[in-house]
Amino acid sequence: IARYFAPLADHPGAFGLIDDAAAITPPKGSDLVLTVDTLVGGIHFLATDPPDLIARKALRVNLSDLAAKGARPLGYLLSLALPDDWSEPWLERFSRGLREDQDEFGISLLGGDTVRTTGPLTLSITAFGSVPVGKTVRRNTVTVGDAVYVSGTVGDAALGLQLRCKAEAASAWNINPAQDSALQQRYLVPQPRLKLSQTLIEHASAAMDVSDGLVGDLAKMLINEGVRAVIMCDEIPLSDAARAVVASDPAALPLVLTGGDDYEILATVAPENTQGFEKAARKTGIAVRHIGHIVAGEKGVDVKDRKGNRLELTHGSYAHF
Amino acid sequence: IARYFAPLADHPGAFGLIDDAAAITPPKGSDLVLTVDTLVGGIHFLATDPPDLIARKALRVNLSDLAAKGARPLGYLLSLALPDDWSEPWLERFSRGLREDQDEFGISLLGGDTVRTTGPLTLSITAFGSVPVGKTVRRNTVTVGDAVYVSGTVGDAALGLQLRCKAEAASAWNINPAQDSALQQRYLVPQPRLKLSQTLIEHASAAMDVSDGLVGDLAKMLINEGVRAVIMCDEIPLSDAARAVVASDPAALPLVLTGGDDYEILATVAPENTQGFEKAARKTGIAVRHIGHIVAGEKGVDVKDRKGNRLELTHGSYAHF
Repeated sequence: IARYFAPLADHPGAFGLIDDAAAITPPKGSDLVLTVDTLVGGIHFLATDPPDLIARKALRVNLSDLAAKGARPLGYLLSLALPDDWSEPWLERFSRGLREDQDEFGISLLGGDTVRTTGPLTLSITAFGSVPVGKTVRRNTVTVGDAVYVSGTVGDAALGLQLRCKAEAASAWNINPAQDSALQQRYLVPQPRLKLSQTLIEHASAAMDVSDGLVGDLAKMLINEGVRAVIMCDEIPLSDAARAVVASDPAALPLVLTGGDDYEILATVAPENTQGFEKAARKTGIAVRHIGHIVAGEKGVDVKDRKGNRLELTHGSYAHF
Repeated sequence: IARYFAPLADHPGAFGLIDDAAAITPPKGSDLVLTVDTLVGGIHFLATDPPDLIARKALRVNLSDLAAKGARPLGYLLSLALPDDWSEPWLERFSRGLREDQDEFGISLLGGDTVRTTGPLTLSITAFGSVPVGKTVRRNTVTVGDAVYVSGTVGDAALGLQLRCKAEAASAWNINPAQDSALQQRYLVPQPRLKLSQTLIEHASAAMDVSDGLVGDLAKMLINEGVRAVIMCDEIPLSDAARAVVASDPAALPLVLTGGDDYEILATVAPENTQGFEKAARKTGIAVRHIGHIVAGEKGVDVKDRKGNRLELTHGSYAHF
């Protein structure tokens, strides 16, 4: 196992993984942001998913949390509980996936733990990053009057998961192979929006990453009393592929709005900061779309169509399969 | 679940666990030491172990790693993969165990993740602490001539596990109920030697905590070529209970020397520092015993009896049951 992971320990503070702990000198003037996410085989990924993509997704899910907090990633710890039937080729591909993403995001494995399990493969990644002292972007610091923004496109991953699970979905939805593949890819390899970190620090009032569905996650930002969100269904950014699915099967719309695994950034921005936010975001090359507002009212989210009618969504949030 | 864990988030940077990440301002002039340990039900603990003790052991195992690196603990993240049959009383007792140890060691839960699993309960704790910049005590910085020390007593936990697994062991070993209970307690609730942190920083050349058995873990410190350890069996500190076991069943000695879960500190100290080390340790109230030396030679560990004969140990290291 050391053979596969020791080469990933680029950082001197990883001590080549021969020690029991890692040590890092935090950048001056920074807070350290820490997040942990655990993925369980058969629940958060399919046993048949390619091992390199499982690894990359596990890492990216954590990097996405850091992005939403405005943090620059520094490194991660990996804890792997392996069933007895693990194989060298599987681990080799798994570690290759980590290598690719370490290079892409400029981070290092710093330490970890490998144990046996009698259950499904379980991997837990703790990622940490730095943010200027006191500038961590919070989730519930939402104010009446704020504009609601989302990055990228919404719902692709949830549709991609359906396509992976049900062979007939692509033909039922009348999409072409390129669209099918694009949606599945979005499920398999999320894009952490780290380029937006600085924009969020400078301009957002609150932010989180969308992991459990747009509507449900937006509801989670409204913890404080008296804040309600109204979002316009027509403004929600959809990819060409998702648009094609919804056009051929309008019943797929709730899945798009409430399905998980998007890993886009959901942010609220005070009215006086929207221009600056949009301008800064434009420079990063990541699209952000103004999809609604925070209003005074009972906690909750209204999704409205172009006539101003409220859509009824039975599930606000996505439950993992 | 929030009900049980949110009250543990004492630290303001835990954001009451309502955010996706935690933020801490590292103490000035400090490095951050990070460690993760995962415990799997049926492998690292028994399903019948009291939930509060499972929680405390998981936390203490990580604190023990920090102690060995010379770190002062700051906080931890908890990732819990729960089978569908989890119960509220179980979680309540589990969280009570964390509360007790947070109070004892002055640390806070900072964040975490709870997921479902189809396998056994799996818990992963990432603990972090601070150490003066560049002073993290390493594991393999062992030099020929160093003295080898171990804290507390060795082998109790491995005997305690036997007593938990085999009802007849206590009578076979001819120990009294108090000894039986003392040994089991050592298995269930390890004592992280955090009071030794500063002593290690100031006087040790290398250190680690003994989690997989004295002899096997000492061998792990000898990664560099040309360093060999010789330890004197008679000098290895045994508790009264362990001494009673070995007296009645000499065949238990290898288990004492190679069994796991001690969570004592194993340290090497340069000859010119042994006096200072012993003096500083004495002030902490934690016993340390000089058990051997590092010599030039092929990597490995010799355990010698009082006549200088080498003991043959079939397993250097402990394999979890």
